Amino acid sequence: MHSTPTMATQTVSISLGERSYPIAIGTQLLDNPATWADLPRAAAALIVTNTTVGPLYAQRLQTALHSHYASIHTVVLPDGEAYKTWETLNLIFDALLGHGCDRKTVLFALGGGVVGDMTGFAAASYMRGVPFVQVPTTLLAQVDSSVGGKTAINHPLGKNMVGAFYQPCKVVCDLDTLATLPPRELSAGLAEVIKYGPIADMSLLDWLEANMDALRAGDPLALAHAVKRSCEIKAYVVGQDEREAGLRAILNFGHTFGHAIEAGMGYGAWLHGEGVGSGMVMAAHLSQRLGLIDMALVDRLTRLIARAGLPTRGAVLDATDNAGRYLQLMRVDKKAEAGEIKFVLIDPPGSAAVRGAPDALVRSVVDACCL
Amino acid sequence: MHSTPTMATQTVSISLGERSYPIAIGTQLLDNPATWADLPRAAAALIVTNTTVGPLYAQRLQTALHSHYASIHTVVLPDGEAYKTWETLNLIFDALLGHGCDRKTVLFALGGGVVGDMTGFAAASYMRGVPFVQVPTTLLAQVDSSVGGKTAINHPLGKNMVGAFYQPCKVVCDLDTLATLPPRELSAGLAEVIKYGPIADMSLLDWLEANMDALRAGDPLALAHAVKRSCEIKAYVVGQDEREAGLRAILNFGHTFGHAIEAGMGYGAWLHGEGVGSGMVMAAHLSQRLGLIDMALVDRLTRLIARAGLPTRGAVLDATDNAGRYLQLMRVDKKAEAGEIKFVLIDPPGSAAVRGAPDALVRSVVDACCL
Repeated sequence: MHSTPTMATQTVSISLGERSYPIAIGTQLLDNPATWADLPRAAAALIVTNTTVGPLYAQRLQTALHSHYASIHTVVLPDGEAYKTWETLNLIFDALLGHGCDRKTVLFALGGGVVGDMTGFAAASYMRGVPFVQVPTTLLAQVDSSVGGKTAINHPLGKNMVGAFYQPCKVVCDLDTLATLPPRELSAGLAEVIKYGPIADMSLLDWLEANMDALRAGDPLALAHAVKRSCEIKAYVVGQDEREAGLRAILNFGHTFGHAIEAGMGYGAWLHGEGVGSGMVMAAHLSQRLGLIDMALVDRLTRLIARAGLPTRGAVLDATDNAGRYLQLMRVDKKAEAGEIKFVLIDPPGSAAVRGAPDALVRSVVDACCL
Repeated sequence: MHSTPTMATQTVSISLGERSYPIAIGTQLLDNPATWADLPRAAAALIVTNTTVGPLYAQRLQTALHSHYASIHTVVLPDGEAYKTWETLNLIFDALLGHGCDRKTVLFALGGGVVGDMTGFAAASYMRGVPFVQVPTTLLAQVDSSVGGKTAINHPLGKNMVGAFYQPCKVVCDLDTLATLPPRELSAGLAEVIKYGPIADMSLLDWLEANMDALRAGDPLALAHAVKRSCEIKAYVVGQDEREAGLRAILNFGHTFGHAIEAGMGYGAWLHGEGVGSGMVMAAHLSQRLGLIDMALVDRLTRLIARAGLPTRGAVLDATDNAGRYLQLMRVDKKAEAGEIKFVLIDPPGSAAVRGAPDALVRSVVDACCL
């Protein structure tokens, strides 16, 4: 990793009427009390983190918040997608009620996507809603999951099946926290950066091809641009369609196949971003076979995903009927309607469409794209 | 019970912008397909009910919905406040996912307040929100809990601590279902009717004094008026303050003391309405001791509560420091702020205020009002 230069903090705004909020992107944000000065006042705050991130940053955040809240508690969750369950969520409620936290209490999600999703759902539900702040410490959370108000836990029969649309009051992306991110997690985050290219901004795809080595080396200026541009695109899409009535579904490019891999392999075996990586390859192939894009773009995207350190081939989920297993798992995707799977397809390059596809075509893509 | 005459269906509207919805109040509504004709179309519907109400009405509702949904499933929950837990809620998610229900699926809450609260929270959370319809079959649910979008489950440390504000798309109060209601449940529902008098409408208090015997005997015309007037008052208050930023809290008159009794005795020992009955007596005494109302109104309200078949004295929750135990339990009430308990007080008769009170005064009220 490079040493991180000080850079001006940049702000991207999410425009959702009275639920609007800023995303602050920069360095040295965590320890700076000014970062937190505009948050709602309350008697208490609860920092929610996990066993990996907590030891690195929880005390520093607590110190920075010290002047803002009379009482600050911390709850440390087990780390990993396998723990994105009701049982873990309940640890947050236990902490809130055990400390007598009232309904002005502010929750801080300090960690990656799992911590953010669970803290957000806890904030949405505790006393029917308390404020919360996203403090994402992984690239995946900074470029995607911390922004836009989707919160959830998993159910044994499907990912993110129980949750809420509930917006944070602020998102703070301190790029310094990415310095401690393991390379595999950095790659997983790059999957969600790459996805914005084919569905929304082909010039981002160009930029990623030119800067992939710098990103994987942790170059702070490259990361700052990737985070900012990703947040801008996500902010635009979410601003148009907060509750995924239409447009927002395009942000799930690669996720329909990816969620099937995650669920089929057991949560945590593949990282979310790894499922999305190979899922994007499959979605690109499906787009090509439907005549929406040419093979050159499929190859270009596949190469970029490989350069990001991500798998470009899907997992084999069933030795006898692999494509059938994919179809079975994808039918419980939230975008499915009356049993018809809805795929996010590139149509044309730089934008996306959500539509069904014949089972036989999907089967041929799965057969061609799995290990 | 009287035999139920056919009467014109009345409609009370809840005005909440795009979340507005009608409350239909009348007889012979359950079996009439026209009752359900304006609901959102979907491939599937799920009826959520309990072991008491299900055998009486689930098949009839399913038959009436038959032409509207291709597939209709039913999930039967154990009956009682003690089951208003995550484990029971999860039975609804298991059913939804087990049947492959998509995010247009419509949920029907067929039962009392517990079924309504849990079905509503399940609808708010399943795939981050699906439509739901309240079909309340108890007086308490028809006059209060089915209207206004408060949904929740209990936590061992407090009642309704985990939930959401989530509005149904319709409420159907079929007065015929009250004919099967046990007298104790009818009385519990009357507590929530009585509460609207002192906080919002003294003429309702007059009417209740004149009609209490008819209500307890199950007179359909009296019940129709009680349900309609209660829904009108609740609709007005919720329309002003959907998320309980201020005014809506007055609807918790009697509930601060009442929740303490429910939690302190163990959920289910006292019915919610029974806790509210004696809780209103305590809140009235507290209002009187703060100089807000005279003793004549306290006595008048106490007599009416007794005539409704409700307890007028609170439970002893702790043999050595009963008032201390009440205070301890009330400090985790959702209205509490920074440890200060907020009481709903009559101020003046026919309206209410939410404010704190000195611990010593609260202690003296608890000491004077418990068994």
